[in-house]
Amino acid sequence: MISDSTIDLIRTFVRERDWDKYHAPGNLAKSVSIEAAELLECFHWNDQPCEDDLEHIHEEIADVMIYCIMLADKLGFDLDDIIRDKMQKNAKKYPVESCQ
Amino acid sequence: MISDSTIDLIRTFVRERDWDKYHAPGNLAKSVSIEAAELLECFHWNDQPCEDDLEHIHEEIADVMIYCIMLADKLGFDLDDIIRDKMQKNAKKYPVESCQ
Amino acid sequence: MISDSTIDLIRTFVRERDWDKYHAPGNLAKSVSIEAAELLECFHWNDQPCEDDLEHIHEEIADVMIYCIMLADKLGFDLDDIIRDKMQKNAKKYPVESCQ
Amino acid sequence: MISDSTIDLIRTFVRERDWDKYHAPGNLAKSVSIEAAELLECFHWNDQPCEDDLEHIHEEIADVMIYCIMLADKLGFDLDDIIRDKMQKNAKKYPVESCQ
Repeated sequence: MISDSTIDLIRTFVRERDWDKYHAPGNLAKSVSIEAAELLECFHWNDQPCEDDLEHIHEEIADVMIYCIMLADKLGFDLDDIIRDKMQKNAKKYPVESCQ
Repeated sequence: MISDSTIDLIRTFVRERDWDKYHAPGNLAKSVSIEAAELLECFHWNDQPCEDDLEHIHEEIADVMIYCIMLADKLGFDLDDIIRDKMQKNAKKYPVESCQ
Repeated sequence: MISDSTIDLIRTFVRERDWDKYHAPGNLAKSVSIEAAELLECFHWNDQPCEDDLEHIHEEIADVMIYCIMLADKLGFDLDDIIRDKMQKNAKKYPVESCQ
Repeated sequence: MISDSTIDLIRTFVRERDWDKYHAPGNLAKSVSIEAAELLECFHWNDQPCEDDLEHIHEEIADVMIYCIMLADKLGFDLDDIIRDKMQKNAKKYPVESCQ
């Protein structure tokens, strides 16, 4: 799970630095893409991570998620709701019986 | 928050379709990048979303997060841990007093 | 090669539609990333293209290049110059003898 | 233009380092996305480049183009052909009269 207290950590971090003014939704969407590419770079030459890379990879996954959380928050979306809603659409789009 | 039951929804979705075999970590990292670009596309010409786009945007944020969750899960990372760990590093890198 | 007449085709295309006003450098950089992700999608599950995908792949490579050409043009860069300059830096960074 | 001799520089660079073995088309597509995100990062907070960034930006545009050229070459595409072909499709998709 990602707990409310973790999400509050992110909110407090931004508030304490007064960074909200930089966080136009479009800027956060760029942040997500930039961090996603840094994550992709960890798998540039290999589909499997090597042991030494694991810490780096977990940092990059965290970065992508942190910016997604900031963006969802900015737009007033509830994370649990939007993920459950999308999974419901996915389940309709790809019925179990047609995917086996 | 993102609840454990929501994360279980994602796991069940993959298991029921037997899609784990496609989910090499490198493939999931590509998925994250591809979905991040679809999210960016929502802000291609504007930094602010228009009302009509909000549903589309929330779907794209959800897609990015769903693939991040799958990848973290695949690599045995605890989401709450990796986000808190990264936020701690961010707090050291950008001390409040130097950012105001 | 990419000929001057091909680059002129791109310039004329933009001018005839009066699209220059949408082409802030930052918007074109987003276009490059979005098209790059569409190209990546062609290789989502395979490192090698299948025969049926070749036309789609060549369109996506073209899209990335077209936006790079527009952006370079916008900023007054000569394409041949910037590529030769970067290759010179690459050659210094990765000397032949250290890469074999 | 991008001259044949510039494209030959790229080919020679790869051949001299024996790097062709790393250049599966899927890997080059990842390279394009990774470099595209580095270019996007130059425009993270601004749509217009500042003077100091221009050299960095021209390097990033060059990187994206270099990997596109390698990928096109790998797949046997003629750059001029694929760009002209795509521009022709664009012209049909967006007729001048409907875009003004």
